[in-house]
Amino acid sequence: MRRSKAFIPTSKEVPNEATLPSHIFLSRAGFISQVAAGLYNYMPLAKKVIKKIENVINEEMEAISAQEVELSFVTPADLWAESGRIEKFGKELLRFKDRKENLFVLGPTHEEMMVDLVRNRVTSYKNLPINLYQIKTKFRDEARPRFGLMRGREFIMKDGYSFHSTFQDLDREFYAVEAAYKKILSRLGLDFRVVEADSGAIGGSGSKELMVLADSGEDTIAVCSKCEYGANVEAAKRSKRGHIPEAPEAEFNKFQTPDTKTIDDLAQFFKVDPYYTIKCVAKRVIYEDSSEIVLFFVRGCDNLQEVKAVNATEALDIVDVTEEELAEIGLIPGFIGPLDQDKAKHVIDADLKNAANMICGANETDYHFVGVDLSVISEVAYFADIAEVNEGDTCPYCDGELSFTKGIEVGHIFKLGTTYSAPLKAEFLDENGKSQPFIMGTYGMGVSRLVAAVVEQHHDENGCIWTKETAPYMVNIMVSNIKDEAQVALGEELYTKLQDAKVEVILDDRKDRFGFKMKDAELIGFPYTVIIGKELVNGNVQIYDRATTEKTEVKADEIYEKIMEMI
Amino acid sequence: MRRSKAFIPTSKEVPNEATLPSHIFLSRAGFISQVAAGLYNYMPLAKKVIKKIENVINEEMEAISAQEVELSFVTPADLWAESGRIEKFGKELLRFKDRKENLFVLGPTHEEMMVDLVRNRVTSYKNLPINLYQIKTKFRDEARPRFGLMRGREFIMKDGYSFHSTFQDLDREFYAVEAAYKKILSRLGLDFRVVEADSGAIGGSGSKELMVLADSGEDTIAVCSKCEYGANVEAAKRSKRGHIPEAPEAEFNKFQTPDTKTIDDLAQFFKVDPYYTIKCVAKRVIYEDSSEIVLFFVRGCDNLQEVKAVNATEALDIVDVTEEELAEIGLIPGFIGPLDQDKAKHVIDADLKNAANMICGANETDYHFVGVDLSVISEVAYFADIAEVNEGDTCPYCDGELSFTKGIEVGHIFKLGTTYSAPLKAEFLDENGKSQPFIMGTYGMGVSRLVAAVVEQHHDENGCIWTKETAPYMVNIMVSNIKDEAQVALGEELYTKLQDAKVEVILDDRKDRFGFKMKDAELIGFPYTVIIGKELVNGNVQIYDRATTEKTEVKADEIYEKIMEMI
Repeated sequence: MRRSKAFIPTSKEVPNEATLPSHIFLSRAGFISQVAAGLYNYMPLAKKVIKKIENVINEEMEAISAQEVELSFVTPADLWAESGRIEKFGKELLRFKDRKENLFVLGPTHEEMMVDLVRNRVTSYKNLPINLYQIKTKFRDEARPRFGLMRGREFIMKDGYSFHSTFQDLDREFYAVEAAYKKILSRLGLDFRVVEADSGAIGGSGSKELMVLADSGEDTIAVCSKCEYGANVEAAKRSKRGHIPEAPEAEFNKFQTPDTKTIDDLAQFFKVDPYYTIKCVAKRVIYEDSSEIVLFFVRGCDNLQEVKAVNATEALDIVDVTEEELAEIGLIPGFIGPLDQDKAKHVIDADLKNAANMICGANETDYHFVGVDLSVISEVAYFADIAEVNEGDTCPYCDGELSFTKGIEVGHIFKLGTTYSAPLKAEFLDENGKSQPFIMGTYGMGVSRLVAAVVEQHHDENGCIWTKETAPYMVNIMVSNIKDEAQVALGEELYTKLQDAKVEVILDDRKDRFGFKMKDAELIGFPYTVIIGKELVNGNVQIYDRATTEKTEVKADEIYEKIMEMI
Repeated sequence: MRRSKAFIPTSKEVPNEATLPSHIFLSRAGFISQVAAGLYNYMPLAKKVIKKIENVINEEMEAISAQEVELSFVTPADLWAESGRIEKFGKELLRFKDRKENLFVLGPTHEEMMVDLVRNRVTSYKNLPINLYQIKTKFRDEARPRFGLMRGREFIMKDGYSFHSTFQDLDREFYAVEAAYKKILSRLGLDFRVVEADSGAIGGSGSKELMVLADSGEDTIAVCSKCEYGANVEAAKRSKRGHIPEAPEAEFNKFQTPDTKTIDDLAQFFKVDPYYTIKCVAKRVIYEDSSEIVLFFVRGCDNLQEVKAVNATEALDIVDVTEEELAEIGLIPGFIGPLDQDKAKHVIDADLKNAANMICGANETDYHFVGVDLSVISEVAYFADIAEVNEGDTCPYCDGELSFTKGIEVGHIFKLGTTYSAPLKAEFLDENGKSQPFIMGTYGMGVSRLVAAVVEQHHDENGCIWTKETAPYMVNIMVSNIKDEAQVALGEELYTKLQDAKVEVILDDRKDRFGFKMKDAELIGFPYTVIIGKELVNGNVQIYDRATTEKTEVKADEIYEKIMEMI
């Protein structure tokens, strides 16, 4: 491509709300243009990157015998009612009626559609397993679309769905997809981590996320210092603590504790480690048709992990409550405890099961209990893992220490089991001729988000730095002075040669001055720029390596061989 | 791919409303599955065909330096208001509000979006021309979606848009795209014709359609017996007639003509050729905010062409009217003529300009005028080409005769001029530094419709017959008896060899009996099936050619070379 005719509208303008490097650079370098909140056009450079990513995905999917399909984007709302997700998805699911008043949704994910496609078409265990996938535009009407391609409303996703006759076979496929996803991210030149994850609105019995490591990641990942363990904090576990502070042994008793409404005050008051105090986090829990206040109890040194809290209550969402709302139902903020209190439902962190020597609110203004032994309620109370792990906690699998890092979720794979096949009555005949619901897995990968993730991990203050497998053009030939016939001639010759060798090459044949063109090349981030400049009179040109920002002098008559060697 | 694990759910069931071969066979052979009216899933075989077609399109687009982009499918309704098309498109344009009550449409075509993308980003004639295209899902809420992929609501289209500084340059690009489109259709193995077309809702100064010739085509094309001329009947022209019947010369006069309400009656009554009578076709013409009755006058031997009538009146649509509606405004059905009558607007066919010796209604019950000379109103009446050409009419470019054939519109290219750039104020600076609206072309090609068009043109009573460039798999290896070890061994060996040679091959390793598998292969339509059967004991196998249905005996040890030679 000749740069003079390429539609690459670079600019100095930073979009108003842009904070992430990928949002800023992809906009400035002419990759994307915003249409409306969360809606983007992919211009030629972005389209090229997307196709390269899609290619890698297709190759690795083919290698594990997954078959590509393409499902209708506009999907009947009936199917979403059948699975029960039409309510669960809430407003993110964009609904509309067609001219005949039939209700449809714009597909944000395609579990229902895929199950509907396979049911009655695959009827025997003999035709299993199958893994069907598509790479297609999706739509989620996010409340706060943001960060450019990172969290758009319309986005490109690779979504795959596998069907099995046994759970063992699902496990095999799950790991095959995990391995394929790892290969894809490695080939794209990304530093990533596979972590345990919460299954969220998709459901199922277990899931893993593929996280591209980047400071700007929206997700916090807990990783072990010794073993391979990694997990989204939404799902991270820890072992029973190694180092436990000394217990403040005491008889059960009620103490007057004026003005000790916070954990800090309380720990100070009794001179105990917050580990031995019980924190109450009151939340309003939202269900499909109702809501209620629920009290979540964790150790004073811990924090409530909200996704765990949502899961523990099987809620759609949880939101904050005011002190007034608590007072209305007779709760006394600052002094709420799990004993002798029936104003609201309780969930107690699993780490507190059988905990002794604890201090907690006495459900009475200015009073706390001491010497609390929770084993007395271990049979009747509801205990669940609802606390967020802390940096420094011990790994659940070894004695390593957990630390936090930031990641961008680019893939999420799920063992669904029969979550969708059972309600949608998608069944096959097993070896004994018995009807069984399909055992399923589902596997997502964010294609447009990957474009942003590459930039988040690979950029500097001057712009994007594309990896070899993602670069829109591998080589940029820069003719410094377009009026210099020798420079133009060499540029054209190299351009033709590289094109003939199927190298993706762009020839910067614009009349602008060298400095401007170089800045442009840095902003866009071509891996290599061949600079044909003044030194050509001495038979030399330069190769600029975008990643290292180093320039290497090369003999002009060896430039083709040198470039071919590098790429 | 092994057939036993391939998701190719063939079936004997014909969809209820299916009448076209492509609809029947693509459904039965497991290419597509219907989701709702006009909405289809593409299963693995169809996805493969689509990708092959897309590949060919991409290659030919790259060859003319068109650049690929991908625009948001969900597009802001504002842009459609800016261009004035939100009304013109009517209910086909699916509208909906997002969670924040902003109005959007699902893009049925992307002129507005593309102009919006380019405006303010390309600002100088120096960066022109550019040709941007995408291959993406579109949505039109058709009133009567039908014929499977032929007229769906969600469909895949290649849409391209070019921007120029001069009309000459638009002409050059228009022909370059026409040539590229011809190459694409030739490469896909299709018999087609490029015809002159009506520009419809897209607008502009001229357009051509690419028609795949097929009996089931929805479009009627007039083609010349001698020259290259071809046109959609909606836009077809003819020369002034060569053979003109003898004129019934007469003085202008009013005649009593009881009960002669039809042209046949009238011609009989006066013993004249219908050529010399004037037919009135009254229609209600629908505009954006109003409607009115308009009288269309054509020769008695001609018929009104409705698309031409819509264009002549700049209407959104025209619909029939009842005799009562005509009577209400004082018109007398059967006796309406273009003289001395001001009850409704007239449009007179251009062929009647200056016509003499005509007979027409006198706007009085049971009376007609004879000896009418329309030259008396040639200055004041509105003449336009509104008659449909007839088979046997003379070509407008030579003395050949026009005949009709049926076609499937798979491409439509338009010289838009400034139809969109002017209202959307998309301008560039010309060589003199003056601001000018872009001069544009737009180029569509129906990708999913092409899948159906291939089958419409290439099928027999047993199923699809894919051409080499469109076949989902080129070679099907049929192991007749899966229990015969020698047959299986040769099948596996050939399968591996062909895969290594990058041939798209499927191995039919199912346990079903030979006849069933052969029927299946015919239904799907693989170009070649290698039959490994009983004759293998004598060292022979067969190659079945789907197009000719011939079987050729080949030595088993030469089968690989033979197949490679054929494909």
